[in-house]
Amino acid sequence: VKALLLIAHGSRVSTSNDEVLELRRRLAERLGTAFDRVDCAFLELASPSMEQAIDDCIAQGCHALTLLPYFLTAGRHISTDIPAIVTRKQAQFPQVSIHMAPYLGQADELIETLAGLALGR
Amino acid sequence: VKALLLIAHGSRVSTSNDEVLELRRRLAERLGTAFDRVDCAFLELASPSMEQAIDDCIAQGCHALTLLPYFLTAGRHISTDIPAIVTRKQAQFPQVSIHMAPYLGQADELIETLAGLALGR
Repeated sequence: VKALLLIAHGSRVSTSNDEVLELRRRLAERLGTAFDRVDCAFLELASPSMEQAIDDCIAQGCHALTLLPYFLTAGRHISTDIPAIVTRKQAQFPQVSIHMAPYLGQADELIETLAGLALGR
Repeated sequence: VKALLLIAHGSRVSTSNDEVLELRRRLAERLGTAFDRVDCAFLELASPSMEQAIDDCIAQGCHALTLLPYFLTAGRHISTDIPAIVTRKQAQFPQVSIHMAPYLGQADELIETLAGLALGR
């Protein structure tokens, strides 16, 4: 079982978290059969937490887990918090392959997307 | 003078803020002559603030200002803080046309970008 976990910051504003749930749905649709499941998790202020989402995936038979951080820059969450959780969970579940994808802000295509928004296209 | 202002959250981690400065540079290069200047501003933990950046732009002759929020979801900053600053600055400078672009998280292309990161392309 291959799983993708979209990791977002989480917000006090529930509609902000709903945006992440909707994004998860559209991403799962776009990815088709590349992953058996696409879940999401939040670092703060919303659930499930990243730890809980990883535990749930593995309890349901996941043996390969890709983590995709929905973050724009490498602040404390990307540089410290997420790697610490990954290290802990990898030690707890050595039989599971846990892979970190680049965080969204590292994608070169963002320049083109931002240019389009700035130009009103 | 037409200006674009890229608005980011700001971080305690200075390399995170540096990523925004580098993005500003690449975006300015991509946009060519569409804007006379491309600046950036931070809501928290880094400078210039959004208010300061708007004041600077206008002091230097800007008459049309496009605000581009580098945010993924509409949490408190997008739904409350930024609109409040815009309302205040528009009242202070009625002669300047201030336009809000959609925040980055509203761009449909993000799905394709996230799919590429998840699939390791």
